[in-house]
Amino acid sequence: MAKDITLLWGSGSPPCWRIMIALEEKNLQGYNQKLLSFEKGEHKSKEVMDINPRGQLPSFKCGDKIINESCGVCFFLESKYKSQGTKLIPDCDAEQALMFQRVFEVNTFGDKMGMLVRRCRICLSFVLPCSDITVETTSGGFLAGKNFSLADVIVFPAIAYLYRFGLSEERYPKLTEYYKNLMNRPSIKATWPPTWKETPGQDILKDI
Amino acid sequence: MAKDITLLWGSGSPPCWRIMIALEEKNLQGYNQKLLSFEKGEHKSKEVMDINPRGQLPSFKCGDKIINESCGVCFFLESKYKSQGTKLIPDCDAEQALMFQRVFEVNTFGDKMGMLVRRCRICLSFVLPCSDITVETTSGGFLAGKNFSLADVIVFPAIAYLYRFGLSEERYPKLTEYYKNLMNRPSIKATWPPTWKETPGQDILKDI
Repeated sequence: MAKDITLLWGSGSPPCWRIMIALEEKNLQGYNQKLLSFEKGEHKSKEVMDINPRGQLPSFKCGDKIINESCGVCFFLESKYKSQGTKLIPDCDAEQALMFQRVFEVNTFGDKMGMLVRRCRICLSFVLPCSDITVETTSGGFLAGKNFSLADVIVFPAIAYLYRFGLSEERYPKLTEYYKNLMNRPSIKATWPPTWKETPGQDILKDI
Repeated sequence: MAKDITLLWGSGSPPCWRIMIALEEKNLQGYNQKLLSFEKGEHKSKEVMDINPRGQLPSFKCGDKIINESCGVCFFLESKYKSQGTKLIPDCDAEQALMFQRVFEVNTFGDKMGMLVRRCRICLSFVLPCSDITVETTSGGFLAGKNFSLADVIVFPAIAYLYRFGLSEERYPKLTEYYKNLMNRPSIKATWPPTWKETPGQDILKDI
């Protein structure tokens, strides 16, 4: 069934990366995929526009169904392949509540984070201590408790992006612990942005 | 079970309203609720801060589980009360894909819409023709096809908010048709913002 799936993606984009993690977790390796270059403007190519008229990556198709919102894709994959691979929506009410909270709060956080990196505005730094508290309050090691869930699929790439841009490991010890633990998860290792392996990160965020 | 649920809300806030629609659709009338005034700064009161340290409405509790992200609450309610009231996640893959796309795109759209109303920036008006196309492409009368779904629960209040601020009914005929049809749905009538009934709207958006 992975043959029915097409993903056009860009390296280092948290929205693209979260879909790739979800595909790995649901054992959907072997899907059609193509790495495109933002720098060369390939996200505005006809190939992309045919799936995503906004000219954005990710562009995602499953059969004839198109979903271009990355969180939407993760939910769709979990729903369609519920009994396959990792269960990404916890059964327990408390973990589920926390999972839904984290997933939707990262949408807001994600927007702010983009601004943070682009403009490095200190006024937005409140999002970070808040994340650090978040990780602290879940004793299970994952964002919504003791199980890896959609919250981790969706939030982890955004956190990794902050470290890529120089976030201080010392200043956010809980967040750093979470980040380093998850780095070694097979789905995350398998999908680590190739351009991040080849080029050094930046230190834009080192002082926040 | 509705007795376990507490909602602190503000009149006319699309995030608050969508939770109230979801509660109606899931037959959870009789929950504890309190209308607070943004104007009087009641969203910064201790009562709110105890549930939502960001001092924002909605503030939502179900038993001891707190979720303050409005879309997260809607998903949680659908998951917890799956077999009660309206089924809000369609069974069919195609409708489900569209539903997830709409739900997550309104998060982005919602942010832009807020800015639109606050600053009336014409440069953001692209979100509207896009919504009009969206409604046109679903032949079933609802945002994700022929069934009322979480997409409608989550997006309708944002659309109503635009009309409240003067969006032209003539310029967006499909959107207007959708808006007028949904207005009469019992869950939406029952939760219509009380302040909107008492005071006239504004015409900030009349020219976009």
